[in-house]
Amino acid sequence: MHILITGAAGMIGQKLTAALVARGHLRGASITGMTLADVVPPTLPSGIAGQALAVDLSNPDAARSLLETRPDVIVHLAAIVSGEAEADTAKGYAVNLQGTIALCDAIAAQQDYRPRMVFTSSIAVFGAPLPPVIGDDVPPKPLTSYGAQKLMCEVLLNDLSRKGVLDAVSLRLPTICIRPGKPNAAASGFYSSILREPLIGERAKLPVSEDTRHWFASPRSAVGFLIHAAEISTESLGLDRALNLPGVDATVGAEIEALERVAGPDAVALIDKVDDPTVGAIVGGWPQAFDPQRALALGFSAETDMDQIIQVHIEDELGGQIPVQDLAEGGRQ
Amino acid sequence: MHILITGAAGMIGQKLTAALVARGHLRGASITGMTLADVVPPTLPSGIAGQALAVDLSNPDAARSLLETRPDVIVHLAAIVSGEAEADTAKGYAVNLQGTIALCDAIAAQQDYRPRMVFTSSIAVFGAPLPPVIGDDVPPKPLTSYGAQKLMCEVLLNDLSRKGVLDAVSLRLPTICIRPGKPNAAASGFYSSILREPLIGERAKLPVSEDTRHWFASPRSAVGFLIHAAEISTESLGLDRALNLPGVDATVGAEIEALERVAGPDAVALIDKVDDPTVGAIVGGWPQAFDPQRALALGFSAETDMDQIIQVHIEDELGGQIPVQDLAEGGRQ
Repeated sequence: MHILITGAAGMIGQKLTAALVARGHLRGASITGMTLADVVPPTLPSGIAGQALAVDLSNPDAARSLLETRPDVIVHLAAIVSGEAEADTAKGYAVNLQGTIALCDAIAAQQDYRPRMVFTSSIAVFGAPLPPVIGDDVPPKPLTSYGAQKLMCEVLLNDLSRKGVLDAVSLRLPTICIRPGKPNAAASGFYSSILREPLIGERAKLPVSEDTRHWFASPRSAVGFLIHAAEISTESLGLDRALNLPGVDATVGAEIEALERVAGPDAVALIDKVDDPTVGAIVGGWPQAFDPQRALALGFSAETDMDQIIQVHIEDELGGQIPVQDLAEGGRQ
Repeated sequence: MHILITGAAGMIGQKLTAALVARGHLRGASITGMTLADVVPPTLPSGIAGQALAVDLSNPDAARSLLETRPDVIVHLAAIVSGEAEADTAKGYAVNLQGTIALCDAIAAQQDYRPRMVFTSSIAVFGAPLPPVIGDDVPPKPLTSYGAQKLMCEVLLNDLSRKGVLDAVSLRLPTICIRPGKPNAAASGFYSSILREPLIGERAKLPVSEDTRHWFASPRSAVGFLIHAAEISTESLGLDRALNLPGVDATVGAEIEALERVAGPDAVALIDKVDDPTVGAIVGGWPQAFDPQRALALGFSAETDMDQIIQVHIEDELGGQIPVQDLAEGGRQ
C-alpha cells in the first residue's frame, strides 16, 4: 500500500500523514510507502519508505513524476485557499483546476492502473440562495472562484471515475474548526479564533452576530473523512462521487455557550464583539447546515456538538489541559 | 461591431454567419467585421471585412491571436462532438475544456475588455435519473464526457462573468432537428434521419420504439438562440448564466405523425423499424422535455410542434418543395 498525499505540508496533510503512520494500514494492507508532495518540502516521517517532494502540481512533468510510484491511494489536498483563489484568478485556476487535471492526466498515462483518489472539495461549491438545511439533492452553485474550481474538479472526477481512469471520492469538507495555529485573515477565521484564543487566555474578535449559523467538523474528523473515503466501496456511489459530509450545525451563540461549558465564563469574557459588515456579508452567503444522508449511510461520522469539537482541540492541540483555567486559577491563588 | 465565431465552418456556424450577414447589425450596431475560426478554414462571406482562420483552439497562442481584434461578441461553437469526446477522452478535454479556457485566458489578457460570450452548452449536461419535464432548478449531472466538459465550461463562465472578465450566456441547446446533410453515426442521428431521408424519397432506419421522447429545435431556431443570446441584457440572469432553452417535446411517434401530415403516407412508408438496443439504451438516459421558464422570460423562442420543424427544413434546405411528393406524383403519372 503506497499512498500519495498532495498538499502534505499543510495542517490537514500533516495530521493525515501522522494518522496513517499511527494506524500502519489502509484498505486492508500494510502501508509500505508514502509520497508526500507540496510546494514546500513536506517531512517524511521516520521509518517510512518513500519520498517527500517540493513540486508545482500545475506543471504536468511534476504531476507525472509523482505518479511514477503508482500509488494505490492518492489523497489530493493541494489547493490555493479561497481568499487567494478569489484575489488571484489565474493562480487559483492554475493550481486548483489545472493541478488536478495534470494529476488525472498523469494517472491516465499509466497502464492498467486505477487508483483510489480522495479529493478534498468544499462546501464552497454551494452559494446563496440556499435552504436552511442542504439535502443531497441541492445543486451546487458556487459564488467564489475557489468553489467553481472545486466543482469543476468534481465534474471531472465523476467523468473519469465513470470511464475507469480512476476511482474517486470527492469530499465537500465542512469548515474545519478549531483550526490550530495563529489567527489569519480568512473570512472564516473567527469561527475558530473565538474558541482557540480564549482557551489559551488570549483575546479574540467576533465580527458577526451570534445568530450566524455554519457547518463545522474538527481537524480530527477531517482526517477521519479522508481515511474513510480511501477505504469505502464506491459501488453504491454510482456516478456521483461527491459527498456532503456530516458535521456540527452551530450558531456563533452555540459556540460561545459550548466554550462557557467547557472552559468557564473567564474564557467567554475574552471575546470582543467588533462588528465587521464585510465579513458578515461574506459568511451570510455560506451554507448553514446539511442533511448528508448519503455520507451517513456510507459510515462517515463527525462530532455531534460544539462541546466535542472543543474537546478534540484540547486533546489534540493543548495536551488535554485548558490553559485559560490554569491561568484563572493561578490568578485567584 | 466585430464578431468572432469559433467552429464557424460547422453547420450551425455557417448558418449563423449567413444570418448575421443578412441582418447586418447586432446589439444595435452595424456589423463591421467578422473573425471566423475553425480547424478547417471557414469561408468569409463576400463584402465582409475580417479574417477566416484555421486554428487549433487548444493552443493558447492560437486563442490569443483570435482575440487581437477584440471582438465585441464571441460566439463559441467549436467543440468535439459527443461521440468523439466519449471515445477520445484526451481530445475531448483538450478542445472542449482547454479550448474554452484558452479563449477565456486570451480575453483576460486584454486590458479594459469585457466581451459578450455566447457559449453553446448542451442538454447533455443532464443525465438520468431525470424528471419527465426538467425545470430550471434540476441539477445538471452529465453521463458523458461531452456533457461533463460543457458543464465545467458553464461553471467557469459563471465565475468569470461574476468577476467581470467577460459577459457570458451559456445555451443548453436542444437536439437540433432536422439536421441537414447525410446520415451519420451519432446515436441521435435517427431523430433527424427518419424525417430528412423520407422527405427526399430515401429510406431511413428507426432504431428505437415510437414512445421514445426527446427535445428538439430546428437549425433556424438554434441560430435565433445564438443571436438573441448576443443581444439580451444579462442583468436578470444573475450569477447563473446557463439557460435551458425552449424546444419541441416530441415522441418518435409524434415525429412520424407530423411527417405524414406534411409529406403524406408515402414518406412514412420509407421508415424501416430496425430495433437497436444499444441506441435505445443511450437515448433512454437523455432528457425528454424541459420547462425553460428563465429562457422564455428572456424572450427565447423556438418551434412549438414537429410540423413547424419539418416546415423549416423544407423552406431552408429543400427550396420550399417536398421532393417525396414530387416523386410520388411522378410515379403515379
